[in-house]
Parts: sequence; C-alpha cells; structure tokens
Amino acid sequence: MKTAPRAQDVADLAQVSQSAVSRTFTPGASVSEATRRKVLAAAQKLGYRPNALARSLITRRSRIVALVMSYLENQFYPLVIEQLSQKLQKEGYHVLMFIAEVDEAADGVLAEILQYQVDGIVMASAMLSSNVARSCAAVGVPVVQFNRVSILGGLARHSSSSVTSDNYAGGQLAARLLVERGYRRFAYLAELEDSSTSIERERGYRAALSEAGHELHRREVGHYDFDQAQAAVRRLFSGDAPDALFAANDHMAIAALDVLRQELGARVPQDVAVVGFDDVPQAAWGAYRLTTVRQRVEPMVDATVTLLREQMQAELRPRDIVVPCDLVERATVRPAH
Amino acid sequence: MKTAPRAQDVADLAQVSQSAVSRTFTPGASVSEATRRKVLAAAQKLGYRPNALARSLITRRSRIVALVMSYLENQFYPLVIEQLSQKLQKEGYHVLMFIAEVDEAADGVLAEILQYQVDGIVMASAMLSSNVARSCAAVGVPVVQFNRVSILGGLARHSSSSVTSDNYAGGQLAARLLVERGYRRFAYLAELEDSSTSIERERGYRAALSEAGHELHRREVGHYDFDQAQAAVRRLFSGDAPDALFAANDHMAIAALDVLRQELGARVPQDVAVVGFDDVPQAAWGAYRLTTVRQRVEPMVDATVTLLREQMQAELRPRDIVVPCDLVERATVRPAH
Repeated sequence: MKTAPRAQDVADLAQVSQSAVSRTFTPGASVSEATRRKVLAAAQKLGYRPNALARSLITRRSRIVALVMSYLENQFYPLVIEQLSQKLQKEGYHVLMFIAEVDEAADGVLAEILQYQVDGIVMASAMLSSNVARSCAAVGVPVVQFNRVSILGGLARHSSSSVTSDNYAGGQLAARLLVERGYRRFAYLAELEDSSTSIERERGYRAALSEAGHELHRREVGHYDFDQAQAAVRRLFSGDAPDALFAANDHMAIAALDVLRQELGARVPQDVAVVGFDDVPQAAWGAYRLTTVRQRVEPMVDATVTLLREQMQAELRPRDIVVPCDLVERATVRPAH
Repeated sequence: MKTAPRAQDVADLAQVSQSAVSRTFTPGASVSEATRRKVLAAAQKLGYRPNALARSLITRRSRIVALVMSYLENQFYPLVIEQLSQKLQKEGYHVLMFIAEVDEAADGVLAEILQYQVDGIVMASAMLSSNVARSCAAVGVPVVQFNRVSILGGLARHSSSSVTSDNYAGGQLAARLLVERGYRRFAYLAELEDSSTSIERERGYRAALSEAGHELHRREVGHYDFDQAQAAVRRLFSGDAPDALFAANDHMAIAALDVLRQELGARVPQDVAVVGFDDVPQAAWGAYRLTTVRQRVEPMVDATVTLLREQMQAELRPRDIVVPCDLVERATVRPAH
C-alpha cells in the first residue's frame, strides 16, 4: 500500500506554497485562478485528498447541513432540494439527505444526524418534536423548520427557526377569487389534519368565505397522496356536490382535475372551479393550466440559508420568517366578466 | 462555555457500559432495544454527540456517499434521490448532494467531493471525465455512473462502474410498437447529441425501424427542457409532419403532447402517436396517459447500492450492470385491432 500524498507533495509538484494548496481546498478562501489550476492539476496527478474531516475537528465545522424530508412525490420538494443544495454549495456547504417516514416525529433520525457533526438541520415535511428541538439547541446545532412547522410550546418554540409562506393569506386569496367569480358551494381538500400548512390555509379560506357571507360546504382529507386525494374528491362530489374546490396543494389539485374531467365529466371552470397551492411546474402544463396560490421557493430557500448563517456564524437567536404568496390565474377558475 | 459530555457520562447516566454507548451509535452494530433506548434518552438529556468524524479518521469511513446531479426538472431524478437515500440509509450511509451544471464535466465539484472523504460517488445526469475517473480510482473511491455514462477510453473505462437501462432494447420496443400499430412516418426527439442514453435509444429505434423496412423521417433535439422540447416539436410537425414521435424521455413527451393537442389540434393517438421513456408518475396522470418505455428505478438503485458495496467493502473490481426495461401501454398509441 502506498502512503497518501501530503499537501507538501502537491505544493512541491505545483511549485507553489503549502498555504496556496490549503487555500485552494478551503471554500471561500482567496486564491488566483492560475494557482488554483496548478494545484488542482498536481493534486489530481498525485491522487491527493485534502482531509476535510480532520480539518473539521479543528474548526468544529463539518460544512454539512442535514435536510430531513419525508416524501418527494409532491413536486414542490425536489425544487427545494435543488435550490437549497445549490445555494448552500455556493457558500461551501453541502446537503446531507435524511428520509423520514411521513409524519413520523423525526426523533429517530436525529441521533444519526448528530453523528455527522452537522452544522445545521433543515426539516421539511417532517415533524419536529419538542424533545428534538431542545436537544439540538442544547448541542448548539441550529434547526430551521421549512414550510411545515410543528406546534411547539414554550422553550422548544424558541429553540428553532422557521420559514413558511403566509398560508393564512393564501387561503384568503383563494376564497376571495372564488366568491368574486360567482361560485357558491365551497369545498376544501386538506392535506392531513395536523399539517400546519393545511390548517393555516383552511383557516384563511374559511375566514374570507365568512367575511363574504359564505361558509364551507364540504371538506375532505387527501393525505398528500394522488390516489387518496382522488378518492376524497369522489366523496366530495357525490350527492350535494360543491361548485368550487380549494386543494391544499397542487399535487392533490391535479389529482382532482383528473377525477372531475375524466371520470365525472365535469366542465372546469364552467361547472366547477379548482384552485391549488404551490405553483409547481406541472401546474402550468397545457393539459391542466391550474389556477393556484404560488409559494415562492426561491425567497423561502434564501430565508432558510440566511437563518442557518445567522445561527451558525453569528450565533443569533432563532426567528421565524414568513414569505408572502400570490395568486397565479390560469384556466381552472372562470375569468372575470 | 460548558464542556461537551463524553461517552462515559452517557454510560454513567444510562447505567450501561461505555461499549453499549458506542454500539448504539454505530450503524449496524448489535445492541438490544432496551439498552438502545436508555442510551438515547441519556444522550439526549446530556446533549451528547458521538463524533462520527473523529471515528471516520480511525475507520477511514465517513459513511457518506456523494450524489452528483445536474437537474431535477425531469421527475425521474427525484425518485432516484428518494430511493437511493432510503436504501443507503438502511445500510448506515447517507447521501451528500452535489449539483453540477448541466453537461459540465464534473471535474469542478470533484475536489470538493473528495474533501468530504466520501466512501463512494454516484454520478447521475452528469458527465464523468477520464481524468476524474482515474483520480477517484487512484485514491480508492468507487464511482458508479447512474443512467447516463460517459464514453471513456481504456484505463478510465475500467475505473468506474455503471448502471443503465437496456436503452438500445427500449428504443427497439418503441419502434416495433409503432410499426405494428400502422404508423409510417417516424420521428425522434433526442435529449442532447452527446447523451449516452439518448444515443442508445435512437440506435435501437433506428435499427428496429430498419429491420421492418422503414427509416427515420425526422429528428430534433429537445435538450431535456420543457420549453426547448416544445419548440423542437413545432419544428418537427411543420411541413411534412411525422405521424409517430418517440421522445427520449417522458418529460419531453409530455411537453410534446401539450403542443400537439393544445396548439396543433392533433388527435393523439388517432392522427399521431407519442411514446416516451422513463415512466415517471406524471406519465400515468389522467390528462396524459402516456405510452412509454419504463425504466425500473428500484432495480437500478439496488444495483447501484450493490456496486458501491462491492467496491467499498470487498474491494471488487468495477463492473457494468444493465437493467431490462419494458413497455407500458396507455393511451397515446392506437390499440391493436
């Protein structure tokens, strides 16, 4: 077995200083492009690997951020992975993936995450328990809850940050549009009963309906799942059917459109309106052209990186950031006269 | 600043041996559920973090596998992330995300990846250069090319493994179906000119057309992109239009269906047939019901984990695994009489 090449070997071959080798392999450190190229060529030739792990023992930084997710079927989350990975990568961090069971409290994976000495944790579509929030705070690892938040009490509430859309306002936008366009029997398709996003969207929807003198006619739970959402839509539209459906995400709204058009022969938007939430790329596809409340992924990811940076580098206190959402009108709600 | 709790502190509080603490935090190690629970409770109470990084310096294992990807818009890749993460997680490994520019050779991110002392690298939808393949082999880090492969010569070819679908056979399946159902003017929508998957699918398609006494009528390049694919379809169907389109992936096939039906008023499958490749979940959505060649994500991911394991643990030589694909008939090709 040959011995591993050292930084000095690379410096000798590249005819640069050892510090130049070190800077080349330190994300964010200043080094000229010419030097960088010489060092990389030499490192490659020698099969040199800078030891980030050894360095992290000194700096106490692994430059790893754990991302906990429970399902990627909803197309919103792949966008989040891609953008979060890209933005963190620009700052010299990388995303380590942890897949949790849907709605399992994430306590199980936490011990595993902490083994990697991560610099931060982003929890998306996974539940954070009070215990976990407190444990992470105790060991100084910042946690950002992304999109969904757990309802935590007291101390735990103040030990994690969060980034969410203004879900309540988004629900209001959907209700006001549907009322204005003349629909009268309003239904809601929830995600899960304990999903914070779904709860807030429903609260806003009901409040705006009520302000306009209307009330919720029917509601069902779709469990985020395409098939379960379709079964829920069949129940919603049997008997005294609604004429307007607000679904808590686009994934379920698209499932609803398939049932309404292909199975029930309903004309959308003439007979029935459908409004979604997220504005995933598929909502714009020609066969759906879904009217929806847009979650702005990019500002949400930016806010997440900001919160991680605040807590990792400046040791600022956790805080909550709420990102505004807006309406994207396409073809599943009648146009204004 | 308080001092970090040590394994002994956890063992004392949990009233177990220090070895029990160590085993609790070693993926795959044997420990009873009761002991495990006591240790985790004590660790949580004390804010103890086992130091995987320090351990990896001794074992030379980081239990991290790097996944290099360049774009997640094609819904095939989120499925791969989810399944690969889940399967590796079960074996005590986690996926560290690296986003490369589309079709950039991955040399740029490689130096960064090696800093993390990863145990393996999976390259999906990213190009592997000969230099990189040789560098990784030199430092003993196994590389598996997933789905797309680079055409590497000589030594480099033997320094990485690969997992692909039988793309050539998949192209043949598409051609034979279209010929059998009476279509006669055949078009192909490629991904990129240098994409191995697209090249192999086209070769199989052309070979089977030729065997049946037909030839390729038209071809265009869609660049994996929804908008560019739609522009390519407009060009394909202007003037002497084809009556059958085989698209190198479902993402572009769905884009094509929107143009054909919504813009050109074509009847699919009566006037024009469309066949895709992948069988992403969206291909089954009611508004598309796309006939497609299925890539079997689960066996492909299993094969990837097997190859990584062979090279990480048994130091076996790299090899190539080809997974069969099959036809999924839905509603975009005329049924048999």
